[in-house]
Amino acid sequence: MRFDIITLFPEMVQSCFAEGVVGRALQRGDIALKCVNPRDFTSDVHRTVDDTLYGGGSGMLMKAEPLASAVSAVERASRSRVIYLSPQGQPLNQAKVRELAELEQLILVCGRYEGVDQRFIDHYVDEEISIGDYVISGGELAASVVIDSVARCIPGVIGQVQSVTEDSFFEGLLDAPHYTRPAEFEAEAVPAVLSGGHHEHIEQWREEQSLRRTWHKRPDLLEKTVLSTRQRTMLRKIMREDWQQRGMPGANVSIALIHYPVYNKRHEVITTSVTNMDLHDISRTVRTFELTNYFVVTPVKSQHELMGRITRHWTEGYGSTYNPDRKEAFDRMQFVHSLEDVREHFRKRGQRLVITATSANPKWTNTTYPHLSRMMDQDRETQHLILFGTGWGLTDEIMEAADYVLPPIDGNGEYNHLSVRSAAAITLDRVFRRYP
Amino acid sequence: MRFDIITLFPEMVQSCFAEGVVGRALQRGDIALKCVNPRDFTSDVHRTVDDTLYGGGSGMLMKAEPLASAVSAVERASRSRVIYLSPQGQPLNQAKVRELAELEQLILVCGRYEGVDQRFIDHYVDEEISIGDYVISGGELAASVVIDSVARCIPGVIGQVQSVTEDSFFEGLLDAPHYTRPAEFEAEAVPAVLSGGHHEHIEQWREEQSLRRTWHKRPDLLEKTVLSTRQRTMLRKIMREDWQQRGMPGANVSIALIHYPVYNKRHEVITTSVTNMDLHDISRTVRTFELTNYFVVTPVKSQHELMGRITRHWTEGYGSTYNPDRKEAFDRMQFVHSLEDVREHFRKRGQRLVITATSANPKWTNTTYPHLSRMMDQDRETQHLILFGTGWGLTDEIMEAADYVLPPIDGNGEYNHLSVRSAAAITLDRVFRRYP
Repeated sequence: MRFDIITLFPEMVQSCFAEGVVGRALQRGDIALKCVNPRDFTSDVHRTVDDTLYGGGSGMLMKAEPLASAVSAVERASRSRVIYLSPQGQPLNQAKVRELAELEQLILVCGRYEGVDQRFIDHYVDEEISIGDYVISGGELAASVVIDSVARCIPGVIGQVQSVTEDSFFEGLLDAPHYTRPAEFEAEAVPAVLSGGHHEHIEQWREEQSLRRTWHKRPDLLEKTVLSTRQRTMLRKIMREDWQQRGMPGANVSIALIHYPVYNKRHEVITTSVTNMDLHDISRTVRTFELTNYFVVTPVKSQHELMGRITRHWTEGYGSTYNPDRKEAFDRMQFVHSLEDVREHFRKRGQRLVITATSANPKWTNTTYPHLSRMMDQDRETQHLILFGTGWGLTDEIMEAADYVLPPIDGNGEYNHLSVRSAAAITLDRVFRRYP
Repeated sequence: MRFDIITLFPEMVQSCFAEGVVGRALQRGDIALKCVNPRDFTSDVHRTVDDTLYGGGSGMLMKAEPLASAVSAVERASRSRVIYLSPQGQPLNQAKVRELAELEQLILVCGRYEGVDQRFIDHYVDEEISIGDYVISGGELAASVVIDSVARCIPGVIGQVQSVTEDSFFEGLLDAPHYTRPAEFEAEAVPAVLSGGHHEHIEQWREEQSLRRTWHKRPDLLEKTVLSTRQRTMLRKIMREDWQQRGMPGANVSIALIHYPVYNKRHEVITTSVTNMDLHDISRTVRTFELTNYFVVTPVKSQHELMGRITRHWTEGYGSTYNPDRKEAFDRMQFVHSLEDVREHFRKRGQRLVITATSANPKWTNTTYPHLSRMMDQDRETQHLILFGTGWGLTDEIMEAADYVLPPIDGNGEYNHLSVRSAAAITLDRVFRRYP
């Protein structure tokens, strides 16, 4: 594998590989590294490589011509790729690293200042890669990261190939903790299982630790991993233990389904009817995500009587023995006359309440699903209420009084008429989904 | 700000900052960088810093004691933090960079080999940080990335502070393309708007380009960003243009709701009844995500007649004028007698069909939501069918014949009885959600 680096600071890249495992591979000739300086391809007396931005803006941009000439000067292998390191690129990950390791040559272009002229990218670059969502001063460190990670995958560079494959990210989970001598350090002994010599127990312990760490530190990775049934069972156990200590994720969250005040399609304020299916489906969703309360809000007395009859059927009557799942789900449901009643519910318990509304209109949006999720998670004392409207949606007064409003659940086309049951299911999944 | 680096390769880190904007800040004394080598804190004649793993495994681990002594030897400022660079850490991002820039001192510990003894981390490290989901040979490059990104945020390090704030990730979107002289390069002119001098038009163009790039390259960033109504409208326009060229995301996807063969709660194979609400809610969800067909599968003739009456009411009768949204939704629905009929539908069109089943039992899981989503996206010719079961779920025969099976939608507790309407809504959101 050959690495050709287009850089204004060749020594910066070269010195990164003076030592270490990749440095030794370079010295042995298992890989080759060569730098080309775009400054050597300028024609003016000042050897200018940068210039100001068209359209204004602070900072300078690298000019296209010296970069283009530098890339053109590199002798090309047959399986070769020109990569520009940039925060606009595709995030580098271990799958991409393995893909790049299959090539014969990587030409890595390092930007500086505010970046490079877009036309250089359009005409000379095969792929843009980002090493992460942060800003650094130039592409040199990013190129070095690519060289290091790719070089490690090339046979011969690392002594034991197994050492690479056992590293993190090869199975989609974080690595287990490791220990070496002394047996005791800071009064802490090495876990007994590791010195027991029982191979199978050690493997099991490491797998469980991997899952535990991934769940605690990078639950997002679990979404992309196919777990075995055994791993899934282990993980559910870890999650439960965790929640016994910290409380369940939905334990400070309730929802309310509002039948008044809402709009009809002529934008008049109306009261909608309670429907049997809204009670059933949303109860089951609320129970699935383990929220605390499901408030059904309507001022109409006869509707309260109807709701009472329905729930008694499922919680006390024939339905409770026929289908006990519904009884469990209905446990969380309460009928109240107004949103003010809901506020009062929390007020009399001395609890602070944060209200988040949902809307099909993006003009109200002032938060994101991950942000709301994080808020609920970090402060377990504050109670949260998520509002869902019936009819043609919650009134402007309710929207204005809400602390937060989530973005609409837009599909891919223009059709925007999910049932409130489906909208509630999707909203709660987006906020409470815990992987996998 | 002071950076103290615990490393076996001090020159590797130091030479990264011999030049460039951070290098100049070092020379001016705006920041300070000092390396400490754990090898200087060994007591044996070989100056050993590594040892084998307890419990077996290839590779070597860095010993706790020399690292602990090296960290202890560093003179501490009052607002100081010890950071271990590791793939097990929290991912570095620009928010974390800004947080770190508020401190007076960062002590950055660089691992080598297979990592470090866990007890060193437990007793001496405040925080673990990862620069990305890939494996590199040691923490030195990662520490250099942290130093560079953090140093840039310290007043005085970069000439114009605006230059930093205009960089990517400060608004949650990717940066717009930039251009510098010459006006023409490779026969491509700079976009006219940028040389027009109309400030407002330039801003608007850059905003639109930012959205376009983020949508094409990093749609995941949009989930974490609150867009203005104007940005959202712009984005929907970009998405529509894109789909006009490449086809809508759901255009090669259909779903089927299976009423036979499914299990009852005693694990007997039965036929369930079609319910009005399943037709309505799931049609609306299918229409929202713009899937192609919604097959309702039941062998019972009288049910076909019932379904015909319901749909005629909404598509031709009173319901079609009362609520035209339902008519639109029902357009995608078809009644068929068996899963074989569905296969035949695609076979006679000469289309390859991939079947993905859903199940509440994790034992069948063999794919992930992002993986299925990617498959559907990348090959637009192959048709996909997602199966949803009624009753107590799809039979083992159906599960075995499916090409893929998605993980169950587990809530946070033990309750696992979502309605099929809610499960379908959540599943399709997970697969088809396009941000925001």
